[in-house]
Amino acid sequence: MQGVDPVRDVDPAWLPDEAFRPIGTRRTLIRGAGPLVDTVHGEVAGACERFGGRVERDAAPGPFDLVLELAGEDSPEAFTCERNGGCTTVTASGQRGLLYGLFHVVRLGESAFLGQRQRERHAPALDLRMLDHWDNVAVHPVMGQVERGYAGGSLFWEDGRARGELLGRVRAYGRLLAACGINAVTVNNVNVHKTEAHLLTDRIDEVADISRELGRYGIRTHLSVTFAAPMVLGGLPTADPLDEAVQAWWSEATSRVYEAIPGFGGYVVKADSEGQPGPFAYGRSHADGANLLAGALTPYNGTVHWRAFVYDHRQDWRDRTTDRARAAYDHFVPLDGQFAPNVILQVKHGPMDFQVREPVSPLIGAMPRTRLAVETQATQEYTGQQRHVCWLGPMWSEVLRFRPEEGAPVGELARGGLVAVSNVGDDPFWTGHPLAQANLYTFGRLAWQPDANPYRLLDEWIRLTFTPRRSEESARLEAGVYAVLAHSWRTYEKYTAPLGVGWMVQPDHHYGPSVDGYEYSPWGTYHFADRDGIGVDRSVATGTGYAGQYAKPWAEVYESPTTCPDELLLFFHHVSYDHVLRSGKTVIQHMYDTHFEGVEEVEAAQRVWQGLSDLVDPARHARVAERFEEQLRSAREWRDQINSYFFRKSGVADAHGRRIY
Amino acid sequence: MQGVDPVRDVDPAWLPDEAFRPIGTRRTLIRGAGPLVDTVHGEVAGACERFGGRVERDAAPGPFDLVLELAGEDSPEAFTCERNGGCTTVTASGQRGLLYGLFHVVRLGESAFLGQRQRERHAPALDLRMLDHWDNVAVHPVMGQVERGYAGGSLFWEDGRARGELLGRVRAYGRLLAACGINAVTVNNVNVHKTEAHLLTDRIDEVADISRELGRYGIRTHLSVTFAAPMVLGGLPTADPLDEAVQAWWSEATSRVYEAIPGFGGYVVKADSEGQPGPFAYGRSHADGANLLAGALTPYNGTVHWRAFVYDHRQDWRDRTTDRARAAYDHFVPLDGQFAPNVILQVKHGPMDFQVREPVSPLIGAMPRTRLAVETQATQEYTGQQRHVCWLGPMWSEVLRFRPEEGAPVGELARGGLVAVSNVGDDPFWTGHPLAQANLYTFGRLAWQPDANPYRLLDEWIRLTFTPRRSEESARLEAGVYAVLAHSWRTYEKYTAPLGVGWMVQPDHHYGPSVDGYEYSPWGTYHFADRDGIGVDRSVATGTGYAGQYAKPWAEVYESPTTCPDELLLFFHHVSYDHVLRSGKTVIQHMYDTHFEGVEEVEAAQRVWQGLSDLVDPARHARVAERFEEQLRSAREWRDQINSYFFRKSGVADAHGRRIY
Repeated sequence: MQGVDPVRDVDPAWLPDEAFRPIGTRRTLIRGAGPLVDTVHGEVAGACERFGGRVERDAAPGPFDLVLELAGEDSPEAFTCERNGGCTTVTASGQRGLLYGLFHVVRLGESAFLGQRQRERHAPALDLRMLDHWDNVAVHPVMGQVERGYAGGSLFWEDGRARGELLGRVRAYGRLLAACGINAVTVNNVNVHKTEAHLLTDRIDEVADISRELGRYGIRTHLSVTFAAPMVLGGLPTADPLDEAVQAWWSEATSRVYEAIPGFGGYVVKADSEGQPGPFAYGRSHADGANLLAGALTPYNGTVHWRAFVYDHRQDWRDRTTDRARAAYDHFVPLDGQFAPNVILQVKHGPMDFQVREPVSPLIGAMPRTRLAVETQATQEYTGQQRHVCWLGPMWSEVLRFRPEEGAPVGELARGGLVAVSNVGDDPFWTGHPLAQANLYTFGRLAWQPDANPYRLLDEWIRLTFTPRRSEESARLEAGVYAVLAHSWRTYEKYTAPLGVGWMVQPDHHYGPSVDGYEYSPWGTYHFADRDGIGVDRSVATGTGYAGQYAKPWAEVYESPTTCPDELLLFFHHVSYDHVLRSGKTVIQHMYDTHFEGVEEVEAAQRVWQGLSDLVDPARHARVAERFEEQLRSAREWRDQINSYFFRKSGVADAHGRRIY
Repeated sequence: MQGVDPVRDVDPAWLPDEAFRPIGTRRTLIRGAGPLVDTVHGEVAGACERFGGRVERDAAPGPFDLVLELAGEDSPEAFTCERNGGCTTVTASGQRGLLYGLFHVVRLGESAFLGQRQRERHAPALDLRMLDHWDNVAVHPVMGQVERGYAGGSLFWEDGRARGELLGRVRAYGRLLAACGINAVTVNNVNVHKTEAHLLTDRIDEVADISRELGRYGIRTHLSVTFAAPMVLGGLPTADPLDEAVQAWWSEATSRVYEAIPGFGGYVVKADSEGQPGPFAYGRSHADGANLLAGALTPYNGTVHWRAFVYDHRQDWRDRTTDRARAAYDHFVPLDGQFAPNVILQVKHGPMDFQVREPVSPLIGAMPRTRLAVETQATQEYTGQQRHVCWLGPMWSEVLRFRPEEGAPVGELARGGLVAVSNVGDDPFWTGHPLAQANLYTFGRLAWQPDANPYRLLDEWIRLTFTPRRSEESARLEAGVYAVLAHSWRTYEKYTAPLGVGWMVQPDHHYGPSVDGYEYSPWGTYHFADRDGIGVDRSVATGTGYAGQYAKPWAEVYESPTTCPDELLLFFHHVSYDHVLRSGKTVIQHMYDTHFEGVEEVEAAQRVWQGLSDLVDPARHARVAERFEEQLRSAREWRDQINSYFFRKSGVADAHGRRIY
């Protein structure tokens, strides 16, 4: 694909040349005009060049196997697809819709050109499908360049500037994102450090360079900004949202942003959170703060993503009445109805912070007059840091299909969209662990269709990504990769923190086990294990009252240890080690069993992967094999530390007499 | 003191102008010639300039109150002091002896000039009294510039070079060291990184600059070198100590070092330790490695300090048979007699790593045919990082007076000298916490006289350092500072890891409590606490056999929990929480009691300090007061975490019903 992916040594991910063979061997007509139509044409032309097909524009003489046309009236990202009389037709009223339609045909593969196909309309359920890059321009001495990044340096920033010659790689990234339905990217860390603050003003041209490349695939660019920008950049004495000079400064700054980037998406803000500045300093509410930026963006139809991740990160661990899980709800529910229409409140899907298992945040569904976006993490901060296989599709799907009360599921309530923290860096495989690409792909597809079956999306990703040399090998290859990934999240859950309690990780970097690592900390992250039992009592009757933040039926379900789902038991209740789960096992035996099972499952997955060595590209196979070594080492460490810790504390022997230290 | 301390905003420490009043108001004759005699003259002349006295050289007409003279035959650092007929006479055969004699007179104060004084001979018990600076030239992104440094940046290196204009500060530092008897300094970290490796060759001129300043006060300069230097710097394919090209390289490099620094002391080497290169890579012994460097240094009477800190830092915590405490003995005792005469084996005073309480290393006394130096830490890595008051004099004194068997104490067995890791940086108070100066001073004085009563040395430091405006206040001032410091080590021990078990610190930075922080780690640092008991069984009968590395009587004393001293019980034995100590308390109640007491003692010390605000220089008082705030916060954190951890684990309530979380 000359001109599209100038960085040839990069993994093709889910867009290998081979995926374009069905189109590239056929005759295609493209009708319509505009930059994204040109992109569509470029994709088809490139495929035809490789595979001998033909592409025409507008009123060329037929016949054609495929027609891609701008026509009719529909929402800008929707398209229809049908096949009649030997011709497959994709119709969209907007250019983006046409682009998505093209990639739909790519996904269909040969089947797009077989038989008849009823007219189907496809449109994203959510308008905003976004990746947040926690990338810094400057390299942080401890965190590295990408905060919580496990795939090398930043894809956007290199040597302190926006990437120059490598902008082609940014374009290739945009192409991958478009092919799974993502339409927005935030190009810098929500923790806005000194250097990065300047992107908003004197370094906006660099953002524009990135934006231009992403725009070729219909991706909008957003920017994380510091709430203190009027002081830090503007030299004002205050950042008070009700101060007129502050408002004027934001308006002026925003107008210059749109001069540089006409299609700019808007701002992302982490305010009054983990040390970032915010409106609290001026006695103002978060609605005041968010509306300040919303006001500046309104003339341009820009949005503010205002993060709801506000809690006391200097909590006293001795104080069992304060509950970090309550914080987002307590802070934001009283503000429902006060936010401007172009404010999107960005809520983490769980009440804590991307643990392997959390309940769905009670904030979702509790603010009917506010546009909520649900934030997830494609980057595997707490789920193995892309050294472990951990495909998160089922977890996200559970969240999106959760119904806070009778009625709409989270996937519908997230009217502000779905956001993931990106797991991509400048690594040749994009995501460090090649199989972590599945998370990125699945995220995009779920953002398009939140009620999709994630396992079908996994199949889709595998079929696109893994193309065997001989087609008769595809069944073994696909089954193998599926076996490695499909249950990997539950496997990871098994060998790490048990039953929803979370947080048994090493402080700061969050990799590897440390049962007490966050127990006596100021972060609000406790398990309260003693010699008799473990868990956090978040009931209304005897605990922090967090369970009461849910609507019925969940408030009741979570309130009692007899109705609380096993997998969340220790999140909601403090129980004794001999408490019997719904599964019939005691809590302690469940811990032992799952930890032994988890490691065995990793061993089994590793064997499956080893068996695919003849079918997978050697570099990709080797990279995954190397990561499996580390995953297995680490999983054993988790197993032994967790089992030893709780054996030493409880004194209860394993029913099966296995080795505990 | 113009020309001596050009850095006027630095704390005068134990050499305030006032300490020179007794000399500066009198008539002094100096007899002899040489650069250090000039230094002695400069000191006296400066004092006379301030206080109106008079100083003459050589055959000037009398009478004199003080005569400082080079005369007779004695060891080069010895001096005599007597007073007859109204004249105090200090006689030394070497210039260094004369310098030490001068500072002896300073310490005596007015009493040096009163009445008669019998002739007393003073000479250091140990020839080598050394500070190792773990300073890097380049600033490490995580560790900072000084590894385990808590007093700002390096005193020697700034902006990637030896300090230029600030070399005067280096000279002032040499002066302070000479005044407490230290005669050698290693100017860079034993972990020799890439930049620092070059100090040996192309950057030796910078070392020479530092050496020149330190030399004005009789301090020799030593250099930490990497064992891989022939490869890293010389481009050789090997660093094998038996390779002739390697030997030739070291000889050549060393001859150039002595060209640049004629009085150079020698090399310090950390080999095969925590990732540093060493002779093991070539199948050679540590004697081979050390003798290689010794050979290069022999023509110049230089020494190699070869560190015995060799252990497996990638131990499996599951393996209870491996014992890091055994490592130095196991590695080095078999090599006794194989080291060249100018090799000094540098042994940490305890078998682990500078914990608040360890037994004395069994290596000391077990290698009669090897010159041993004993290494201590003035820098408070594990003892409060110069945010906590923790005067280590009593701990060092216990070590130095310990007799490994019937016969000589450690202070005599350390024929290779006494070494401390420096606690000094570019902080205006030298040591961050102003009261941490007492550690530096006490170390130097103990190195001179290992059997000195440390509490007398503390008195000495206080009298020199704290000079009240009105002399009638001195008793209250001295008593107050003494009360704050004298028992501070035991106070620190009380609120941190109990009964010799050590290591309950936060990983990596080692500040603040984390009971399990090193429990499931590869560092060989465990407490093995479970719901029933705690401690490491190092007995011969049932444990790792470490106790058997001691000679009698200690092997027997440590072997049994009934004879093992309470304060080391958990270092040597795993006992139940209800084990009754010699004190009559159970182990668990001892933990609770000491942790409550420790915090109370900090509170009391803080009150004492507050009561001295009218007597102490405001800046110094404020700095200490600020540190006390942090010490108290941290001590409470230690108390509550340790008590809570063991209460949760043991289930044993505090006998006094105090608050445990």
